[in-house]
Amino acid sequence: MRIDLLLASLLLCLTGAGAFAQSVVSVNSPNRAIRVSVQTAPTGEVTYAVRYKNKPVLEPSGLGFVLSKPKTSLTRFTMTRVDSSRHDDTWKPVWGEVSQIRNHYNELALTLLDKSGSGIGLLVRFRVFDDGVGFRYEFPQQTALNHFVVDDERTQFKLASDHQTFWMPGDYDSNEYLYNTTKLTQVDAVAAADREKDTALKSVIGPNAVQTPLLFKTADGLYISLYEAAVLNYPVMHLQLDKKSLTLTAQLVPDAVGNKAYLQTPAQTPWRTLIISDKATDLLASKLILNLNEPSVIADPSWIKPQKFVGMWWEMHIGKATWEKAGGKHGANTQNVKTYIDFAAKYGFHGVLVEGWNVGWEDWFGNWKEDVFDFVTPYPDYNLDSLTAYAQSKGVRLIMHHETSGSVTNYERRMDAAFQFMNKEGINTVKTGYVGRIIPRGEHHDGQWMVNHYQRVAQKAAQYKIMVDSHESAHPTGLHRTYPNWMASEAARGSEFNNAPTLGITPEHTTILPFTRMLGGPMDFTPGLFRFKLNQFESSRTQEVRTTLAKQLALYITLYSPLQMAADLPENYEKHLDAFQFIRDVPVDWDDTKILAAEPGDYVVVARKAKGAANWYLGAITDENSRALPLTLDFLEPGKSYEAVLYRDAPDADWKTNPDAYVIERKTVTAKSMLTLSLAKGGGCAIQFVRK
Amino acid sequence: MRIDLLLASLLLCLTGAGAFAQSVVSVNSPNRAIRVSVQTAPTGEVTYAVRYKNKPVLEPSGLGFVLSKPKTSLTRFTMTRVDSSRHDDTWKPVWGEVSQIRNHYNELALTLLDKSGSGIGLLVRFRVFDDGVGFRYEFPQQTALNHFVVDDERTQFKLASDHQTFWMPGDYDSNEYLYNTTKLTQVDAVAAADREKDTALKSVIGPNAVQTPLLFKTADGLYISLYEAAVLNYPVMHLQLDKKSLTLTAQLVPDAVGNKAYLQTPAQTPWRTLIISDKATDLLASKLILNLNEPSVIADPSWIKPQKFVGMWWEMHIGKATWEKAGGKHGANTQNVKTYIDFAAKYGFHGVLVEGWNVGWEDWFGNWKEDVFDFVTPYPDYNLDSLTAYAQSKGVRLIMHHETSGSVTNYERRMDAAFQFMNKEGINTVKTGYVGRIIPRGEHHDGQWMVNHYQRVAQKAAQYKIMVDSHESAHPTGLHRTYPNWMASEAARGSEFNNAPTLGITPEHTTILPFTRMLGGPMDFTPGLFRFKLNQFESSRTQEVRTTLAKQLALYITLYSPLQMAADLPENYEKHLDAFQFIRDVPVDWDDTKILAAEPGDYVVVARKAKGAANWYLGAITDENSRALPLTLDFLEPGKSYEAVLYRDAPDADWKTNPDAYVIERKTVTAKSMLTLSLAKGGGCAIQFVRK
Repeated sequence: MRIDLLLASLLLCLTGAGAFAQSVVSVNSPNRAIRVSVQTAPTGEVTYAVRYKNKPVLEPSGLGFVLSKPKTSLTRFTMTRVDSSRHDDTWKPVWGEVSQIRNHYNELALTLLDKSGSGIGLLVRFRVFDDGVGFRYEFPQQTALNHFVVDDERTQFKLASDHQTFWMPGDYDSNEYLYNTTKLTQVDAVAAADREKDTALKSVIGPNAVQTPLLFKTADGLYISLYEAAVLNYPVMHLQLDKKSLTLTAQLVPDAVGNKAYLQTPAQTPWRTLIISDKATDLLASKLILNLNEPSVIADPSWIKPQKFVGMWWEMHIGKATWEKAGGKHGANTQNVKTYIDFAAKYGFHGVLVEGWNVGWEDWFGNWKEDVFDFVTPYPDYNLDSLTAYAQSKGVRLIMHHETSGSVTNYERRMDAAFQFMNKEGINTVKTGYVGRIIPRGEHHDGQWMVNHYQRVAQKAAQYKIMVDSHESAHPTGLHRTYPNWMASEAARGSEFNNAPTLGITPEHTTILPFTRMLGGPMDFTPGLFRFKLNQFESSRTQEVRTTLAKQLALYITLYSPLQMAADLPENYEKHLDAFQFIRDVPVDWDDTKILAAEPGDYVVVARKAKGAANWYLGAITDENSRALPLTLDFLEPGKSYEAVLYRDAPDADWKTNPDAYVIERKTVTAKSMLTLSLAKGGGCAIQFVRK
Repeated sequence: MRIDLLLASLLLCLTGAGAFAQSVVSVNSPNRAIRVSVQTAPTGEVTYAVRYKNKPVLEPSGLGFVLSKPKTSLTRFTMTRVDSSRHDDTWKPVWGEVSQIRNHYNELALTLLDKSGSGIGLLVRFRVFDDGVGFRYEFPQQTALNHFVVDDERTQFKLASDHQTFWMPGDYDSNEYLYNTTKLTQVDAVAAADREKDTALKSVIGPNAVQTPLLFKTADGLYISLYEAAVLNYPVMHLQLDKKSLTLTAQLVPDAVGNKAYLQTPAQTPWRTLIISDKATDLLASKLILNLNEPSVIADPSWIKPQKFVGMWWEMHIGKATWEKAGGKHGANTQNVKTYIDFAAKYGFHGVLVEGWNVGWEDWFGNWKEDVFDFVTPYPDYNLDSLTAYAQSKGVRLIMHHETSGSVTNYERRMDAAFQFMNKEGINTVKTGYVGRIIPRGEHHDGQWMVNHYQRVAQKAAQYKIMVDSHESAHPTGLHRTYPNWMASEAARGSEFNNAPTLGITPEHTTILPFTRMLGGPMDFTPGLFRFKLNQFESSRTQEVRTTLAKQLALYITLYSPLQMAADLPENYEKHLDAFQFIRDVPVDWDDTKILAAEPGDYVVVARKAKGAANWYLGAITDENSRALPLTLDFLEPGKSYEAVLYRDAPDADWKTNPDAYVIERKTVTAKSMLTLSLAKGGGCAIQFVRK
């Protein structure tokens, strides 16, 4: 439904003839809490400002572009047209945290004509939701502009004061950092990046450059997430900070020759987004990013199935096995994979991921080598045909692994053959990987060329009815609405960093992820580690998993993904089968989600209702501090009674000293029950509510 | 056959213990005319020098590398081993100018150990033939060197004096220049490039950079061609000239980030080659480049067939039709292609090239656009299925056109589908095109990445039994020995430039090509223009073909290709069917070739014996000067009598004033006959000798 109307809140002060030569145009959110005002200065500069409940969120901030072809600046405009409309409908995702999503906003579209006389026109389209704002630029087809090259986007975000900021260093190739929490003016991205020793590849932009999603908490309790939605055919946006003016300016990722984007009209940028709330829980519940993406392009999504999986992966990280065959510890041998298939079948997992199955791992990393893998040739000790048949007989499926080692030209040439091979082997999920420097050389993981590549993979995989889980890809921006077969991505520091020697995964990391990275889409975090000292196979390994076991369970709820791995080794699960039961039971697709309590960097409590079932699941996690969180269970169906199975930290649990001390407790509860969750340091709690 | 022996000419002065710490090592050609001497200085610098009949060809010239990874210079060495051998055998090309080729050389292989202590070892391998020298570097598999990145190759060529030089500006993306003839010290590449206004894309290196093949004529009558052979997995070599020392240094083509080559041991460079003779005719007859390439990798080459073709191409150049459909003059419509098929069938041509058949031409050029063509979608007015059937019924085949517009990533992703489509349509020859800036952006036509691409096309085409004719590709270096399905390339200024407004094709151009570009392999020059004023369809068009008609015929002999186009329009041929008969008769595969007379920039006379037949064909061309060339026909079989059909310039012919004045004359000749060819200004002569 789409009704065009002049919104009551639209204020226009016309001073020119036939153009809005000096004007303020405003639009409110449907609930009138958020207001966006756009002002055109007499000189032609156009700025926008955002207020929330009459508090400033963004001070007047610039808009515009510099093009390298045609060589021109688009920074001074005549506003030639204002359109407004409102939109309110509800749509159903193929899978997700909720079964339906309301898309409700007021829209303002401003037509701007370049004042320099180039004849170039563009639109800025604002959508103002109750939970935030999205805006993008649109370049209509026009005589004055056909092909064009973006040299710089001049979009600015001028903060009202020096907020507490959750940030990562701006980096063209990696988003696998820990978050830093400082005042905005205390950002030092180079120093932060220098502390990170375990990232395979860093391309740090500079001391004042940060990544999105960027989270602010204001002194008066406002939460603001600055991000982007629907990044297609355009580079990822990083941000350059001017500390004096508290202004962030778009820093697009350059290509091999320094250009940012090659576009042809009609074209548009991604949406630049602000999620704004005075409740941290509402920010986590926002569906703004998804709403700004286009509907699914997959007509029949019946083959797209959320799933849990186990696999051959963590044992390489902790030194039990190797990806490569040379050296005598090759993990992906037929017998070993059989044990994973048996384990998956025994405990009800759908998938078995096998890494290191294909030839090439002896020489795959760090040399910018182009022809590494062919994606169709198993190692000789890996009998894929027989394992496919064996898995099928057991009711599980293998999951394919396509590590590209960053050699994307090589992958693209071989992708059809690789997907055909998967079809032949009856494998319908692929984990892709982009470890290392990109080929085409000079391109970056976050550049337009790679953004287009990820989209091509999603599209081509859909042709072959293949589900995708991409690692080392650009941050997700809600594209799983449009391509629901692109189910998850890594694109952040995931559980594998538990094994990293230097910084690892701090207890707070998983309490920040939902406020940042997770706003863009599901993450293949790979939770479920049950062994906390990682010296099982190599005694010199001092790294530790910095959570309790109960927190590992809770992560299945707090970090949503339709693809969830049970990441640890079968032998580690078999030592804690009672706790493992939660991983077996927990769904990966949901009818409803309630964010019950949350504070970035501190704690997150989420409850979710299983898809098509009456049961609820709850996950609660804390940072390095223990805490008691009182809960009302009013999300449960009133008048019904539930058996709650609590997987909680034992009273003496502590991520440092006693991580695997957990208690499993059963009690009967109703919607009126109160619970106080006691979370250990680095701890958590997972609860299954089974309706009686 | 390969015999290892210490050549009698090997002179070693050993001064070190177990190493050749200060030594001169020499090797002669089998006929002892050419001598290569390698000297190691006490500091470790290794130089080589070349002499021909005891005249200096190259003064002592440097060897070595700078690597960017590992960061080291390989310029000072300890010579740890000297191997020598000789080789003499004969091999048969799949097709070519001759039916068998003798490969006869003395070889010297020097093992050099980096003196800086890196532990890196390499070999320099010299092969000294009677007609020249080839040498290359080899990096054996070794502990000290696995993956490495070449920052610079330091190979030098120090000339003995300031020779007359036939040169083109060094350019990373174009070899479609006219040749300049100056003293070496008078090279001004930037000025020369500035004169060229009609090249789609130029990436000129600098004022003192020139391309190979580079031709020198010395004051005492020596002809020296400096070139390279077997350029695989390595960039093209251009040359930087130091005028003071008369030294040319290798200037490899950089990639998008400035590196030259990514290699992994075992690896080798292309051969750096010198063809040397005191007879210009011998230089043209040299098979040194082919001999330095590897034998064919195509086990069963029976599907590879030299052919002549006509096609839809020149009519776009002269404004009769367009590639694009928009505009109403679309050439590749079903009816028009039918007339070409009918023409081909009527006059015995095997192929019909159709350009502009596929959607995308409305927006294909000049915008660095990635997704231009899909190579499988015909324009709606082009009924390929019906034309394929129609062509088949007439005994001819369509030739496919894959213009990539430089977007090679796009082509590589679609290549399998494109070749499968050709197989389905029964089309087994493809003309590829690379007009415009390369994608991956920042790469160059002559860089390692593109060199690898051209090889991939040859390999993949062979898988699909497809013959390739590549345009805008890097200069050929004899790879048609290894990939005989890569039959021809453009890689120089071809006949299309007859239509270029500024410089066009000078009368001398085709007399220099055989001494330069053609040494590397067949050229799809597309001769056979019968109309010389090109204003047939657009009266404003002032360009002219700067030859006589007889010279157009002679080019079929003087510019060898197994793929030869009859490039003009059917209606232009039908006006001169008597002359057209030569194009119908001339073969494209030969048992033998004799270079009868030649002087670069002046004239070339070549006789060839048809493959498997007794008939000979002769082509003679001149530059802007008329000339009379006396000939003895002693290449004909003694004692036999031949009917010679001479297609010669009429007495009043002149490329400027009377280009289509020709005479066809028949006479009976024998091996003892003498003929004096009278060539008009810009003229030529073609002769068919039919054995009686």
